[in-house]
Amino acid sequence: MYLENINSPKDIKGFDKEKLYALSGEIREALLEKLSKTGGHVGPNLGMVELTVALHYVFNSPVDKFVFDVSHQCYTHKILTGRKAGFLDEKHYKDFSGYTNPDESEHDFFKVGHTSTSLSIACGLAKARDLKKEDFNVIAIIGDGSLSGGEALEGLDNIIEQGSNTIVIVNDNEMSIAENYGGIYGNLALLRKTEGKAELNMFKALGFDYAYIKDGHSYEEIIPVLESAKDSKKPIVIHIHTIKGKGYKFAEKDKERWHYNGPFDIETGKAIYDFSGEKDFSSLTCEYLLEEMKKNKELVVVTAGTPTVMGFTKEKRELAGEQFVDVGIAEEHAVAFSSGVGKGGCKAVFGVYSTFLQRTYDQIFHDLCINNNPALMIVFAASIYGMNDVTHTGLYDISLLSSIPNLVHLAPTSLEEYMEMLDWGVKQNKHPVVIRVPAMLVESGLEDKTNYYDLNKYEMVEKGREVALLGLGTFFGLAQDVAKKLKEEKGIKATIINPKFISGLDEEMLNSLKKEHKVVITIEDGVLDGGFGEKISRFLGDSNLYVKNYGIKKGFLDRYDVNEVLKENKITLDDICEDVLKLLEK
Amino acid sequence: MYLENINSPKDIKGFDKEKLYALSGEIREALLEKLSKTGGHVGPNLGMVELTVALHYVFNSPVDKFVFDVSHQCYTHKILTGRKAGFLDEKHYKDFSGYTNPDESEHDFFKVGHTSTSLSIACGLAKARDLKKEDFNVIAIIGDGSLSGGEALEGLDNIIEQGSNTIVIVNDNEMSIAENYGGIYGNLALLRKTEGKAELNMFKALGFDYAYIKDGHSYEEIIPVLESAKDSKKPIVIHIHTIKGKGYKFAEKDKERWHYNGPFDIETGKAIYDFSGEKDFSSLTCEYLLEEMKKNKELVVVTAGTPTVMGFTKEKRELAGEQFVDVGIAEEHAVAFSSGVGKGGCKAVFGVYSTFLQRTYDQIFHDLCINNNPALMIVFAASIYGMNDVTHTGLYDISLLSSIPNLVHLAPTSLEEYMEMLDWGVKQNKHPVVIRVPAMLVESGLEDKTNYYDLNKYEMVEKGREVALLGLGTFFGLAQDVAKKLKEEKGIKATIINPKFISGLDEEMLNSLKKEHKVVITIEDGVLDGGFGEKISRFLGDSNLYVKNYGIKKGFLDRYDVNEVLKENKITLDDICEDVLKLLEK
Repeated sequence: MYLENINSPKDIKGFDKEKLYALSGEIREALLEKLSKTGGHVGPNLGMVELTVALHYVFNSPVDKFVFDVSHQCYTHKILTGRKAGFLDEKHYKDFSGYTNPDESEHDFFKVGHTSTSLSIACGLAKARDLKKEDFNVIAIIGDGSLSGGEALEGLDNIIEQGSNTIVIVNDNEMSIAENYGGIYGNLALLRKTEGKAELNMFKALGFDYAYIKDGHSYEEIIPVLESAKDSKKPIVIHIHTIKGKGYKFAEKDKERWHYNGPFDIETGKAIYDFSGEKDFSSLTCEYLLEEMKKNKELVVVTAGTPTVMGFTKEKRELAGEQFVDVGIAEEHAVAFSSGVGKGGCKAVFGVYSTFLQRTYDQIFHDLCINNNPALMIVFAASIYGMNDVTHTGLYDISLLSSIPNLVHLAPTSLEEYMEMLDWGVKQNKHPVVIRVPAMLVESGLEDKTNYYDLNKYEMVEKGREVALLGLGTFFGLAQDVAKKLKEEKGIKATIINPKFISGLDEEMLNSLKKEHKVVITIEDGVLDGGFGEKISRFLGDSNLYVKNYGIKKGFLDRYDVNEVLKENKITLDDICEDVLKLLEK
Repeated sequence: MYLENINSPKDIKGFDKEKLYALSGEIREALLEKLSKTGGHVGPNLGMVELTVALHYVFNSPVDKFVFDVSHQCYTHKILTGRKAGFLDEKHYKDFSGYTNPDESEHDFFKVGHTSTSLSIACGLAKARDLKKEDFNVIAIIGDGSLSGGEALEGLDNIIEQGSNTIVIVNDNEMSIAENYGGIYGNLALLRKTEGKAELNMFKALGFDYAYIKDGHSYEEIIPVLESAKDSKKPIVIHIHTIKGKGYKFAEKDKERWHYNGPFDIETGKAIYDFSGEKDFSSLTCEYLLEEMKKNKELVVVTAGTPTVMGFTKEKRELAGEQFVDVGIAEEHAVAFSSGVGKGGCKAVFGVYSTFLQRTYDQIFHDLCINNNPALMIVFAASIYGMNDVTHTGLYDISLLSSIPNLVHLAPTSLEEYMEMLDWGVKQNKHPVVIRVPAMLVESGLEDKTNYYDLNKYEMVEKGREVALLGLGTFFGLAQDVAKKLKEEKGIKATIINPKFISGLDEEMLNSLKKEHKVVITIEDGVLDGGFGEKISRFLGDSNLYVKNYGIKKGFLDRYDVNEVLKENKITLDDICEDVLKLLEK
């Protein structure tokens, strides 16, 4: 076994091709073994084995600097740079993150998890090198799927302007998470077909030198091209064709499913945990939208490269036909496009993860909300219970959207409310609307009769006195639990409020609390700064009410334990009750 | 005079070429006459006269739909679509905005003021047309300068994917506001040089049909190309070469200066109001940075197409040499690039208008702050006193940045503080830093001895009792005025606090207020929702203090009168004093 003797990239420098292939086999085996236990980005990493080994073989990391786009494909890089224990030893499987991380190794330069950023940050690294009159290679490795993001295109444009050494490796596996969409992909296809020889070449048109590698799993092909690019004094694109999921038949066959997986059985490819029978917001959203699209041919569903966030698997996408649009990884376009669709008299529904919504502040503000065009955005994984890598947390969207006028931002607390808001959001034509999907699917058993046209009317679910509890979205249940405990233990009948509208204040209801209440509590599933609770605190700041906001303290959380975070932020039944009692005694 | 008989586009339909040229002359004269009085986008509009007339001659607006990028070049369009009074009659000069506005005319479809958005919103309009099985042309008109923005590139990519009629007019005047930078511009130059015949063609590479117009002021050239593109069933790029400032010698000669002007004398080209002798933050920033760059070769100043926001006129840019980088209109890249520069051990200073900072939330969050790389961003026109078109207001940046961890966000109140913060921001290497330049240049005469490494320490400028006034940035002076009035009229000695740090709470100082104070007031120059004051309200929400936040109510403001807005929001000396007295009596 070669892998056991490799502790840093220099340990592969003397390898002949045979050893390199043998090493690749070992790496692939380790990846499969580990990922089958922990889950992870299977397809992207299996496709990157030879390219990564070759990069470390040819270049001299960390003097030469690799910048991985998204960095979900960096596992082989981690294995070769002192972190193989995380892949070989089950006890250490959780030691390292699934993304590059400078805290782990001098071979990593950025924490990265969003797409399309590598070219710009690499361009900055190269600029620093040039200012310092240093001499090394900067190599950005970007997948074809990430190329459609505006930031990546801005990066390509500026790498040329800078003009000095930056090597852009376009890892073309013919896939984004799902299939690719956009004119760029027509050009990549033409270049693959012509083995890089086509005259129409977007990279050359921008000013790049260009080289093509037909078989991205052949060291005979990869190494000479990398060697000839090494120490280039000007920008070069190396376009390399790889196979996503290479070497694992199931992953090669169903590339979309194997982009990211939970634990699986290596022999059969079957998932260890089967969630398929469970109801979830994504598939219920998809079912609803497919039904509506049948009735309304002017309804269009939009994704930016993550179709299954709304349950649109390949089969469902085909059912939707031209009423489903995947714009590729291009969230900015998705929002601006939705505004155009609304202006044109149709309705777009854009489903997106909270963390990727962050790319679209100005499009929501300028392209959509200034124009007050109707559109519906559905935001998933917007919760402390969502994705928990530091680059993927979903805690900031309330704050992000809080200052944008005209936007109606809704927080359902139950499936019934969600479905009602979804139906309203799809059918109304007066507002840009965002629905923040809660973390847990709770069925209240209650019909939601809210008239959502009547903006910013909160629902007083229980009218009590002394204490008013505003539980937003996911944490409405916790507000109910607090009320129950106060009643049972102290005989206090608290008022319970379901705000539903994140983006506005129900001034009448809030004013009404001033009479018979002393304490107002808000609980929200997001960062406190700029959040919902602060608006309540502001509105009631000059009253005699004590107001306390529960939410997450500002800070970056990484691979956290939810319950620990909730405890640290006192978002627990006991903490809240205790605080309430103290305030009542004040 | 032809112009007096033109009230809608149909009135030019029968014109022969001679009449069209005569009309163009009249329009140009009207533009110059009006702009010399009111100021406005001189160069872009003079360059668009013939193209706009030809568009209305060939196409059938509003059935065919024009979408202008930025829309600062739409004056001729306004003249031809029922709004000529705004250009011919001094009494009506202020009736219409300088941008497209659907509230003004059925010929306008979007309120637009930011760059690079036209392709995506046009793509959405075209999708709605296709879903409705309608049949008309969608025409996006975008300048070469706007093409470098990521959103525009996402739009190009998706127009091809959509595949149906969308006509993209690339108005290539070889300029952004200043000169263009990036690989795209190399390709445009090649296409101009070869009169559109070069094989390397980025538009064709993406899949567009392509046509080139050599003389964008010749109806003989423009009209046939537009006619052949009309009703195209697939996307086409029409690349047209125009002269920015066409027909006005001063504007043709110094294109950068004449992009946007205040009132001027037509004969001499000289500005009516001369501000050149006055100190301003931009030129002082430039002076400081030029001096520092001489001493520190690892300092780089970055702009995204607006170099003069930091005073970097052409002459100053030349002085800075490779230490000045204009990334083109590409704010996302500018921030990510700055993060890379910081990681590489150098320091980038990015100057940007508040309204354009909105494009970079995710780059600040993900590319910069998660990595905690050092960089300095200086935000201009972040004030109610800033630009006042709805698309350009500078009221949202505090809220935008409020939830981003690791970011140090500073609000100077005087020139002395600004210069100290600037110096610290340039020299420190621990944090990503933002400085919010105040609206008014006030010299306090006091040396700023703050240690900015000691984060979130507010300055208590006056220690008083009963009332504490926190005046942030621009409104620190107002807080001082309130204190003065309270003292003079009521004998109340208020505490005055200069927070300096927008992004954090000085918990110790805020807690100390609880003893001898009853009322806490915050005043900030921005929208209330998600702003600075709300954080103070949250922190003090469970105390016995009354807290009142002054700021702008959430909503879109357009071409507003500052004093009226301040009155409406009670941000006046009298209103605040009155509120304070009421709260003291409570």
